Amino acid sequence: MTVAKIRLGMVGGGQGAFIGAVHRIAARLDNRYELVAAALSADAKRATESAAEVGIASARSYTDFRVMAKKEASRKDGIEAVVIVTPNHLHFDAARAFLEAGIHVICDKPLTSTLEDAEILVKLVAERDLLFAVTYNYSGYPMVREAREMISAGALGAIRVIQIEYAQDWLATNIETTGQKQATWRTDPARAGAGGAIGDIGSHAFHLSEFISGLEVTSLLADLDAFVAGRTLDDNAHILLHFNNGASGMLWVSQVASGKENGLRIRIYGDKAGLEWAQEDPNYLQFTPLGAPRQILSRGGAATSAAAIAATRIPAGHPEGFLEGFANLYREFADEIVAHRDGTALDCVSLVPTIEDGLKGMRFIEKAVASNNAGNIWQSLDS
Amino acid sequence: MTVAKIRLGMVGGGQGAFIGAVHRIAARLDNRYELVAAALSADAKRATESAAEVGIASARSYTDFRVMAKKEASRKDGIEAVVIVTPNHLHFDAARAFLEAGIHVICDKPLTSTLEDAEILVKLVAERDLLFAVTYNYSGYPMVREAREMISAGALGAIRVIQIEYAQDWLATNIETTGQKQATWRTDPARAGAGGAIGDIGSHAFHLSEFISGLEVTSLLADLDAFVAGRTLDDNAHILLHFNNGASGMLWVSQVASGKENGLRIRIYGDKAGLEWAQEDPNYLQFTPLGAPRQILSRGGAATSAAAIAATRIPAGHPEGFLEGFANLYREFADEIVAHRDGTALDCVSLVPTIEDGLKGMRFIEKAVASNNAGNIWQSLDS
Amino acid sequence: MTVAKIRLGMVGGGQGAFIGAVHRIAARLDNRYELVAAALSADAKRATESAAEVGIASARSYTDFRVMAKKEASRKDGIEAVVIVTPNHLHFDAARAFLEAGIHVICDKPLTSTLEDAEILVKLVAERDLLFAVTYNYSGYPMVREAREMISAGALGAIRVIQIEYAQDWLATNIETTGQKQATWRTDPARAGAGGAIGDIGSHAFHLSEFISGLEVTSLLADLDAFVAGRTLDDNAHILLHFNNGASGMLWVSQVASGKENGLRIRIYGDKAGLEWAQEDPNYLQFTPLGAPRQILSRGGAATSAAAIAATRIPAGHPEGFLEGFANLYREFADEIVAHRDGTALDCVSLVPTIEDGLKGMRFIEKAVASNNAGNIWQSLDS
Amino acid sequence: MTVAKIRLGMVGGGQGAFIGAVHRIAARLDNRYELVAAALSADAKRATESAAEVGIASARSYTDFRVMAKKEASRKDGIEAVVIVTPNHLHFDAARAFLEAGIHVICDKPLTSTLEDAEILVKLVAERDLLFAVTYNYSGYPMVREAREMISAGALGAIRVIQIEYAQDWLATNIETTGQKQATWRTDPARAGAGGAIGDIGSHAFHLSEFISGLEVTSLLADLDAFVAGRTLDDNAHILLHFNNGASGMLWVSQVASGKENGLRIRIYGDKAGLEWAQEDPNYLQFTPLGAPRQILSRGGAATSAAAIAATRIPAGHPEGFLEGFANLYREFADEIVAHRDGTALDCVSLVPTIEDGLKGMRFIEKAVASNNAGNIWQSLDS
Repeated sequence: MTVAKIRLGMVGGGQGAFIGAVHRIAARLDNRYELVAAALSADAKRATESAAEVGIASARSYTDFRVMAKKEASRKDGIEAVVIVTPNHLHFDAARAFLEAGIHVICDKPLTSTLEDAEILVKLVAERDLLFAVTYNYSGYPMVREAREMISAGALGAIRVIQIEYAQDWLATNIETTGQKQATWRTDPARAGAGGAIGDIGSHAFHLSEFISGLEVTSLLADLDAFVAGRTLDDNAHILLHFNNGASGMLWVSQVASGKENGLRIRIYGDKAGLEWAQEDPNYLQFTPLGAPRQILSRGGAATSAAAIAATRIPAGHPEGFLEGFANLYREFADEIVAHRDGTALDCVSLVPTIEDGLKGMRFIEKAVASNNAGNIWQSLDS
Repeated sequence: MTVAKIRLGMVGGGQGAFIGAVHRIAARLDNRYELVAAALSADAKRATESAAEVGIASARSYTDFRVMAKKEASRKDGIEAVVIVTPNHLHFDAARAFLEAGIHVICDKPLTSTLEDAEILVKLVAERDLLFAVTYNYSGYPMVREAREMISAGALGAIRVIQIEYAQDWLATNIETTGQKQATWRTDPARAGAGGAIGDIGSHAFHLSEFISGLEVTSLLADLDAFVAGRTLDDNAHILLHFNNGASGMLWVSQVASGKENGLRIRIYGDKAGLEWAQEDPNYLQFTPLGAPRQILSRGGAATSAAAIAATRIPAGHPEGFLEGFANLYREFADEIVAHRDGTALDCVSLVPTIEDGLKGMRFIEKAVASNNAGNIWQSLDS
Repeated sequence: MTVAKIRLGMVGGGQGAFIGAVHRIAARLDNRYELVAAALSADAKRATESAAEVGIASARSYTDFRVMAKKEASRKDGIEAVVIVTPNHLHFDAARAFLEAGIHVICDKPLTSTLEDAEILVKLVAERDLLFAVTYNYSGYPMVREAREMISAGALGAIRVIQIEYAQDWLATNIETTGQKQATWRTDPARAGAGGAIGDIGSHAFHLSEFISGLEVTSLLADLDAFVAGRTLDDNAHILLHFNNGASGMLWVSQVASGKENGLRIRIYGDKAGLEWAQEDPNYLQFTPLGAPRQILSRGGAATSAAAIAATRIPAGHPEGFLEGFANLYREFADEIVAHRDGTALDCVSLVPTIEDGLKGMRFIEKAVASNNAGNIWQSLDS
Repeated sequence: MTVAKIRLGMVGGGQGAFIGAVHRIAARLDNRYELVAAALSADAKRATESAAEVGIASARSYTDFRVMAKKEASRKDGIEAVVIVTPNHLHFDAARAFLEAGIHVICDKPLTSTLEDAEILVKLVAERDLLFAVTYNYSGYPMVREAREMISAGALGAIRVIQIEYAQDWLATNIETTGQKQATWRTDPARAGAGGAIGDIGSHAFHLSEFISGLEVTSLLADLDAFVAGRTLDDNAHILLHFNNGASGMLWVSQVASGKENGLRIRIYGDKAGLEWAQEDPNYLQFTPLGAPRQILSRGGAATSAAAIAATRIPAGHPEGFLEGFANLYREFADEIVAHRDGTALDCVSLVPTIEDGLKGMRFIEKAVASNNAGNIWQSLDS
């Protein structure tokens, strides 16, 4: 039986924006959404041109997301969900506008610019009984799901050590001074928030460490650097972690690690086995039981869990990548929306990161900055 | 400016078929096609259910591709192109039906069951001035395009040796006797044609060796095996190759190589440098100039050609995979169709494999069988 | 012209000891030493049997290293140098005995049990004008030398980040309670000293980070764990580092990282390029200039420095390993001894780790423990 | 109990020769031999200087191997075994001279220049009851031994396919015209014999395919190339193989594969599992049972056989390399010599390649040339 596609809107993501196109492909991949309205740019000309390019009727191309939220809410065929892919400082106002209009939200990370704003959104979501996804997209990779399942099933035993890193090099020089748009707002505290690299990519790594391990970070100790002259936000961070079961960990985040493209990598060691996963080689998971040979588990291959299989589309040896992992969140959020629409229960627990995950990410950023500013001392992450 | 989406039909690819879903995702990824009609199965119930699942109106769900071709040709909003993803033995009749109805064709490989049939299609395409793509999809990977560009630009110097292999293990046991559908028709000469592994995956490898190197195979010497008891078609092939510039090569094809998932790999050595690419790690290309360190070129990273950049959607370090490479052929074929529709010229030479490539693949299969049957002697591939 | 072989003695390293055999092979590899005397064990029977096995005349097999030092010093053909490969707590007394007897010393790491003892040895070496090598053997690998040369030549630009790790899993269970000899003394504070994993392998990693980078660690902040029940010394350590040029770093040491065999790995990022080296794949060095493809430099291959070439014996593609790297220190120390014997100067600066390096290692251990005990606060490494 | 060292002589391997030094290190590594006599060069001055460098007394430095054989045979302390490391064309005369003098021989591969010569040596060895080792040194690697054991124990089931390759690039240009010594004799039929690359490295690959698989090649079909202008011996070979159990295989040998250093690699596929080993990463073996995850077996790690353990000196994670593998043959041949000397039996079957292995290598070379010259037709390898 065919289910009607979900009517989707988008805020941000006009011409030249990388992440907007990613969200559109991810939404399209499984044919569950129809992009029908957008405020792709505050600039009227750019908004119109961008809308035409992505096939949105001009009547539903907006320049102001508040107007969009109201008008769409008043249409019978108005959008059911909106994607927010603006720079960080606009997430809060946009999310609030659509939530207040009764529209589900998919929001890029980090959730907001401040922890306070994040808390307001959390309340709003609860009050309005709406759905809210934060695109910590790396949790959508099948082998990340596999790792989570294996740990949950006890394959590693008691976890002792978690090493996580996310290293890039695209901010190794001061390209923000050259007009490069992505760099300009990400290195500007007014638009990025309190965190530089820790907000942009550290929040992904932080989420992943808890998502896979099933543990919670209880405290952190951070040492932040801004290596590039003139930069005020961190471009490198070394963070010590304590987890709620007594495990210890390290988190390294860098956007000045020359030669690293998108090096997100996690390694977890328990008293029975260890595992390793790297985002740049996402279809494989290394698993080594103590005293036995290293095993290379492959997506779609032998020995993968139901959770991993549910998140894969094509057979082993046919690589899936970043877009497919991203699309998994869209597909699962579509199931959530349909269940919400129909008042039915989901078949299984959704793995889509929630607004609470978004909130935790904000707390991570604020506490990392606080630890650094206080001279590298431990900060509790308890709420 | 928005271009109207291409109205697309599909033959084959109903419930349970792997490759039909792949084509649908590939067609959808760049938003250039709209799937509006299909003969997904000859079984009425299955056809209807499959059509509903993929969002095709029941009025345009057919059980007979000949009927579909006629009816669609007579509609004002009829399909402009059709995808044929049936077992091999139906390719010919289906392709002919749509070509005769004036509809462009995208056809899975191998093109037909016999060389003669392939030649008939080639003529028909020429007579009708229609477009015909054969989905040798591995040629759509960005780093395959990069390799081709580098060789074309002389980075390897004169090519001497080409080693190509395509090894899988899914036919290592006689699963065709268990009712496994994919295996059943692929090991049945009546439905697969004269080639087993050489047709199913060897044709991909053969195409890739010429596509990347820019050379042509002039003759081959084949040694075929059917290792699994009861199997009549080859499940392993060792083939020597001679190229038109004097280069030598080897082609290994296997579907009984225990432990190999989808191991397509090509290595090319010239008098200045060598390069290596593996489909299971598709975002990287190894390039080693004589006497210099090995370089790892990455998709979207430094030092990639315009051809590779045109075939990539997201930045370096964010892996693209099989579906994205496949979608590149769809996107480029969309450009061809639009240019054909508008009577305009393409911006650049299309890299989509043509019916002539399909014909060459059929000649490869027939000559490999002939060489083997004659006691492993050289066969010319001249037409 | 032939140079007379150096007469060598050994303390420790009897039957069943792993590291004694390694030293003997390393000493033999380049034919520069002759092992003629030893106190392989304090147990008379075991000492005699061990001596016979390694070809030492019974007259020069001792059970007491003090006796050995005196007797050998009094022989005309007495040993010129001694290797000390006992458990850590005996290093000091043994080293002192031989130094006082006028004999050069090669000593395993860590240098002593306490920083005070190390300082006494430093003075003694200076007073007696003797040579003293500490076998931080990983500095002997050719590609480690290459990395050092490249950084020294400016290939990385200004160094910003150093990530170093040394992870093993052999102490993931409490094998010290099973009588396993290596584990028993290493987990016993009375024999190992104040450091567990940080002393046993952390001191290697610490040395390597300074050796390759040419920088000095000015302060550290350590978080130590003893995960295995009943263990008092650390078996895992997370350490933040500050270097004298403003670079930041992380050092992870573990002997409970399930699945890791001998995972020593260093990654260094400068403002021009980054490099990575892993001990388990020692013949290769990854080097990535900003904005250019990753290069894989190979030992003996293209683009290696004179320093690397001097440390290699066989061509590229013919792997050298742990023993060859270890032997490089022996070969170079032989040159030092011959120059000392002849009163001549060395051709080039020796890269063999000195007693000062040993002293720094002791300071690293003590400060790491102090930082941890003080609640994870920064400790200066200034002497 | 100490066993007296074996008195060893060497023919060839003077200054500038790579392989002579390798043999000397290999002989020294386990302290079982003492190099006491040599004919390192036919040139008197070079012989004398070379002898001094390696510590051989001038009285036992010879310029003529025939003189050396006679004189050493007449000494009470004469050599018990000799190593022959000259260019190929001298192997036969040298081996014969020492065998006739009653001295055991260790000879580099290929055994001789012609099959006839090889057969004469085989007879001579039998008549004199002497020991003869051919240094197919790659069979000495621990993980090669492990692979052999696993296959012998049935871990792969019935073997179907063997892919073996040995690719280098050092002859990609005509360096033989530049006076490079190694290249000059290897590309000269008068000194190298009938085979170029197939003799120099193909014979290694051929031996390894039989050594690991436990099978025998019954016939081959070869296509040889000499790509570099002016070269008469093959520098690239593509060879099809049939094995005595019905398995098929491919052997690729090249010395013009730009970018390959010493790429010897073997992959074997049975009906239960497959395995892969690469010489440039020798401490690991990939093993994949059908339908299970790929396993990475490590030297000295979990799940290795007694045969592998016997061939390893240091723990997992501490890489052993080419020299250690080479030394394994020397160590095992020492056991053979001692048993022969004492008239006792060996503890276990020796794995050291014998003169029969050398003979088979010669047959491989001759038949490959014959197949090529006859137009690429099958040649039986039956004797």
